[in-house]
Amino acid sequence: MNLEIMMDKTRGQMPVSRWEHTLRVRDTAVAMARREGEDPARAEIAAILHDYCKFWPEDELRRRIRVHNLPEDLLDYNPELWHGPVAAEVVREEFGIADVDILNAIRYHTSGRPGMSRLEKIIWLSDVIEPGRRHPGVDEVRKLAEHDLDRAVLKAMDNTIRFLLDRSWKVYPLTLLARNAMLDEVQAKAPREESV
Amino acid sequence: MNLEIMMDKTRGQMPVSRWEHTLRVRDTAVAMARREGEDPARAEIAAILHDYCKFWPEDELRRRIRVHNLPEDLLDYNPELWHGPVAAEVVREEFGIADVDILNAIRYHTSGRPGMSRLEKIIWLSDVIEPGRRHPGVDEVRKLAEHDLDRAVLKAMDNTIRFLLDRSWKVYPLTLLARNAMLDEVQAKAPREESV
Repeated sequence: MNLEIMMDKTRGQMPVSRWEHTLRVRDTAVAMARREGEDPARAEIAAILHDYCKFWPEDELRRRIRVHNLPEDLLDYNPELWHGPVAAEVVREEFGIADVDILNAIRYHTSGRPGMSRLEKIIWLSDVIEPGRRHPGVDEVRKLAEHDLDRAVLKAMDNTIRFLLDRSWKVYPLTLLARNAMLDEVQAKAPREESV
Repeated sequence: MNLEIMMDKTRGQMPVSRWEHTLRVRDTAVAMARREGEDPARAEIAAILHDYCKFWPEDELRRRIRVHNLPEDLLDYNPELWHGPVAAEVVREEFGIADVDILNAIRYHTSGRPGMSRLEKIIWLSDVIEPGRRHPGVDEVRKLAEHDLDRAVLKAMDNTIRFLLDRSWKVYPLTLLARNAMLDEVQAKAPREESV
């Protein structure tokens, strides 16, 4: 499937501001992929498609979660969590994408999950730190991302959970499991340094 | 089983400072039970016994988790989480306590869990706000506890999760599920007020 066609179709799914975000995620992810020894072409596809269903009506997302047998517990949590898993199914059908790693990078780009691949981490993180993002702590994460992908993801996941607590929103359990797993990965590389 | 005997035996399991903490938890829990329409005598027993195994060696706690078929995922998380579930089994055997609500108040006094009973909340919260506690945010929780048990538990759970994030410690998934459930309970009583 031609990248230009994917870009055209994706642009048609969202307002201009979101498309501009998408392009910034693409740029961030491609640069990060180069730095991390990941395939930039796969990072580009995943980044372009990650928000494919972001502006679909909630009813349609809810329907797709059922149709595609996606985890029904999603429906008990913030609808923000729905568009990633649905998009993975939709772009598989729409564009014939069979690369499971690309599909998972799209699927888990909001929730994260334990055992994320390098590509999944790159997409998850690029979405959070692309240059248009302004939330508290983002600069620290950007700096970390330049030399330590795992620590940057961990820090950004901690920030995400704090944000949800502050807002009195539920935290999707998979997000906590993803954060705990990142902590294990980071601490396995530098034992004890993170503790206390 | 005589309360005096339970107190004597419990005091023998711990250093003086922890016994003093136990008595403060007892006083806090009994007062809270009266305020909340819960049985103060059951609150007293649960409070006295909640830290029964707090100073047992980790190896013994680990052995008991296996012997009593307690959730083995505990072993992947902070050993601080072990003494509650083990104590529930031990005091059942040692003192013949059959009141499941008391046993659960002891069992879940560190982790919390979704669907906590009023007694479980009282013990969980009293342990966190007894007058000897000095951590950040405790005064706000104490104030809330005077008129809204559920909001106080929710706030204290949020604080606990933030504390664990700050320290780079793993968060036990049941603790997050407990917090999400408390949020649901609070928001069901006062819809939307907590959001945004």
